[in-house]
Amino acid sequence: MAYDSDNIFAKILRGEIPSEKLYEDADTLAIMDIMPRAEGHCLVIPKSPCRNMLDASQEQLNACLATVQRLSKACMQAFCADGITLQQFNEDAGGQEVFHLHFHILPRHEGVKIRPPGTMADFGLLKQQADKIRAALDA
Amino acid sequence: MAYDSDNIFAKILRGEIPSEKLYEDADTLAIMDIMPRAEGHCLVIPKSPCRNMLDASQEQLNACLATVQRLSKACMQAFCADGITLQQFNEDAGGQEVFHLHFHILPRHEGVKIRPPGTMADFGLLKQQADKIRAALDA
Repeated sequence: MAYDSDNIFAKILRGEIPSEKLYEDADTLAIMDIMPRAEGHCLVIPKSPCRNMLDASQEQLNACLATVQRLSKACMQAFCADGITLQQFNEDAGGQEVFHLHFHILPRHEGVKIRPPGTMADFGLLKQQADKIRAALDA
Repeated sequence: MAYDSDNIFAKILRGEIPSEKLYEDADTLAIMDIMPRAEGHCLVIPKSPCRNMLDASQEQLNACLATVQRLSKACMQAFCADGITLQQFNEDAGGQEVFHLHFHILPRHEGVKIRPPGTMADFGLLKQQADKIRAALDA
């Protein structure tokens, strides 16, 4: 299916709506998820358009995974996490809600389940968590 | 943490235990998951050792994602799927059970939830599903 440039991540990439940015390079951007399902839940997206993993170029996938690994390691340190759950959804039936390729990084702690979907973050708390991730990335 | 070469995927790669193979190239192997959580649930692993995404090399990640995309497209076709859910678990707390990097490809259909974990596949059915994926890969 075609890429729709009115999706929320395209708007974030164009600077039309704000985001809590964690990291960017020439090809990727990492931001906080505003409907977090774990402490430190963040997202990695390519800067160039693609709908999801199914239509992504190898270059887009490679660039995203490099940033996913970088952010995952930072999250492990920032939250003293015990693990990371990586999720990536393709099409409605696959769980996708925003139709620009994105990888979900969920820092995990022993005995703590992933939260149910649909609750908006406290933006003050989101910024505190983002500060921890940015500090770990700079360390 | 260190890589333990006694894990089940290392044994499959050494040919010590059987698997329902779907695809292989120089760097990756794709097999059916024997505890499937969706019709056509399959796995992509690198042939070289690494524990998970956190200690993987960029080359391992790139090779796996190329095969993930190839298998995902084949699964979309093989099962007339509506979407794909991609999962990758790191460490116990992240949901990891076998400590060799693997990506879960879950073909999805509208209105069909992911099954609960822990049920062993019917091996006849698994082979039928594998045949469909192999046929789609060859098409």
